[in-house]
Amino acid sequence: MNTIRIPFQTIQTEFQRILLKLGFSAKKAETCARIFAENSLEGIYSHGVYRFPRFVDYIKKGFITVDAEPRLVHSAGALEQWDGRLGPGPLNALFCTERAIHLAQENGIGCVAIANTNHWMRGGTYGWQAAKKGFAFIGWTNTEANMPAWGAKESRLGNNPLVFAVPFGSDAIVLDFAMTQFSYGKMEAAELQGKILPYPGGFSEKGELTKQPSEILKSRRALPIGYWKGAGLSLLLDIMAAVLSAGLSTRELSQKEAEYSVSQVFIAFSLEKLNNFPVIEKTIGEIISDFKNAAPDETGREIRYPGERVLHTRKENLKNGIPVSKKIWEEIVSL
Amino acid sequence: MNTIRIPFQTIQTEFQRILLKLGFSAKKAETCARIFAENSLEGIYSHGVYRFPRFVDYIKKGFITVDAEPRLVHSAGALEQWDGRLGPGPLNALFCTERAIHLAQENGIGCVAIANTNHWMRGGTYGWQAAKKGFAFIGWTNTEANMPAWGAKESRLGNNPLVFAVPFGSDAIVLDFAMTQFSYGKMEAAELQGKILPYPGGFSEKGELTKQPSEILKSRRALPIGYWKGAGLSLLLDIMAAVLSAGLSTRELSQKEAEYSVSQVFIAFSLEKLNNFPVIEKTIGEIISDFKNAAPDETGREIRYPGERVLHTRKENLKNGIPVSKKIWEEIVSL
Repeated sequence: MNTIRIPFQTIQTEFQRILLKLGFSAKKAETCARIFAENSLEGIYSHGVYRFPRFVDYIKKGFITVDAEPRLVHSAGALEQWDGRLGPGPLNALFCTERAIHLAQENGIGCVAIANTNHWMRGGTYGWQAAKKGFAFIGWTNTEANMPAWGAKESRLGNNPLVFAVPFGSDAIVLDFAMTQFSYGKMEAAELQGKILPYPGGFSEKGELTKQPSEILKSRRALPIGYWKGAGLSLLLDIMAAVLSAGLSTRELSQKEAEYSVSQVFIAFSLEKLNNFPVIEKTIGEIISDFKNAAPDETGREIRYPGERVLHTRKENLKNGIPVSKKIWEEIVSL
Repeated sequence: MNTIRIPFQTIQTEFQRILLKLGFSAKKAETCARIFAENSLEGIYSHGVYRFPRFVDYIKKGFITVDAEPRLVHSAGALEQWDGRLGPGPLNALFCTERAIHLAQENGIGCVAIANTNHWMRGGTYGWQAAKKGFAFIGWTNTEANMPAWGAKESRLGNNPLVFAVPFGSDAIVLDFAMTQFSYGKMEAAELQGKILPYPGGFSEKGELTKQPSEILKSRRALPIGYWKGAGLSLLLDIMAAVLSAGLSTRELSQKEAEYSVSQVFIAFSLEKLNNFPVIEKTIGEIISDFKNAAPDETGREIRYPGERVLHTRKENLKNGIPVSKKIWEEIVSL
C-alpha cells in the first residue's frame, strides 16, 4: 500500500470543504471534520480518513440527514430519551455526551439514550470528551449483526462497542472496545499483508477456531471476546440500548439496506460532586502507577493503560503528518 | 468427590442456625441464609454452600461485622456514596440495589457506590433483584488482585465481576461474569477431575498460553477475557468503583491479610418511567427469540441467553435436592 503523510490541518480542511458542499452548516462542518481528522491523528485510522468516503456515501444515499438535530422525546429526570432523527452520528454523540454531562452536573449522574442516530465512528471520542471535562463516563452503541452468539453459526449479534473513561491528570484513561476479538477491518488488513492473527479471531467454515483471517472473512464467524462472555455482553448492550432509547435493536437495524438508525447510551458521573473529589486525582494516579509497575512478562511489551498510546500517536502524527493510503486520499480530494 | 443431595430448605435452616449463633439478628440471618442457599439452588455452587465456611471464618476473624448497617456518606442527587462499615457483603449489596432502585424511581436512573463492603458472593443475585422489580441494572465489584495486566506477569488486577440485567417477562436476563476467562475455582475443579480447560485459561510459567489448569494454578497467571480487552475493562471497573465509592482499590485491598473492604457500584434504570414502557416486554421478547433462532453451530449446544440455565437448575435442585460434597456438608453441620 502506497502511504503518504498528510498534515492534520490539510485533512481537516479537506473534510470541511466536502461537508460544506454536502450542505452542512459552517459550524457543523468544522466539528464533524475535526472529529474524523482527529480519529486518524490519534491512530484510529479505520474510523477517520478511511471511513470518511463511506460517510459521504451514506449522506448521498439519504441514510444520514446532514442538518437533523436531536429532539427530546421524553425526560424521566436524570435519564432522558432523545430521537437522533438520522443526523450525523458524531454530531449526535457529541451532543448526547454534553447533555449527559449537564444532567450529571444537576443530579450526580446523567444518562442520555438516543434512538435513530448513526455510527459514532470512534467511541473513545466521547469518553475523552467527558473525561477531559472531569466526568467519568460509560457509553455504548449497538451495531448491525456481525458476530454469532455462542453456539450459533449465524451472526445475529452486533460487536456493540463499549466505552469507559475517567479523567487522568490533564488527560484521560479511555477504554473503547468492540465485542469481537478482532474487527473485520483488522482481519482484512491482516489478510492483505499475508499475516495471521496473533490469537484465534473466529471460526472456519468447519467450525474450528482459527488465526487465519481469510477463513474468518469467508465464514463470517468472528469470535466474541471471552467466547460466551462477550456474546452475552453484546446481547445485553443491545437490549439496553434499544430499550432505554426506544430505538432499533441489532435485529431490526440489520434488516435495513445499510447500517443506520442505531441506538446509543451515554452515562456521565460528576466527580466534582463526590465527597472524595479532592483526592480522586491521587487515587487514580496510584492505581495507574501500581498497574504499570507490575513485573513485565516475557514479551517485553510495555504495560499500557487504555488510551495511553493515543498521546504518543497524536504527537508523532502532528509532527510527521498522518499516514494515509495515497489511493484513498486521492479519492477524498476528488469528492 | 462424594456428593449428596440436600433439600433447599434444610440448607437454608442450617445456615440460619449458624448465623444466629454468630450474632446475626433473626431477620438478617434469614436473608443472608436465603442468599447463600439460593446461590447453590440456582447452580452457582462456588458462591453458595461451598463459600459459606469461608464466610463464617471471615466473621470469626473480624473481617466481617455481623450487625453493621450501611451509612450514607454523601448524596449528590441520583448518585449516592455509602459506607458499608464492613457489614456482610450480601446484605449490603441487597440494600444498595434497593436504594439504587429507589433513586431510579425518583430520577429515572439511580446509582449507589459503596465503600468498605464485603464479597457480594454471586453478583447475579442483585441483577435478579432489580430486574424482577422491573428495573434494568448494571453493577460491579472490585476484588483483590488475581489477574495480570496485559504484558505483565504479576497479578495486579482483580477479576472484578460485572453484572447486566433486564426484566424478561416474569423472569430476567442476567449476565454475571468475571474478567478472567475461568475462575480459579473452575480451574481447581478441572485439575481435581484431571481435565483440561476447553480453551486457554492462562499462561504457564514460561509465558505460554495453556489449557492445563495445573500450569495456571502454579504460575497464577489467569487470562483476561479478550486478552488486553478484559485487562483494560478490569482496570476501569476498579478505578470507577474506588473513585465513585471513595473506597479501596484493588491495589489497596490486596495489601490486607484477606479479601475484605471492597468497593462496589449499583446502577438501576427505571423502565416504568420510559416513554416506551408499554412495548418494552415485546422488544426484549423479539430480540431473544431472534437470538435463540440463529442457525446452530457444529457443537449442537443450545443457544442460551445469560441466566437461562438458572431456571432449569433451580427447578431440578428444588425437586431433587441440591448437590453438595458430603465432606463440606459435614463441616457446615458441625459449625
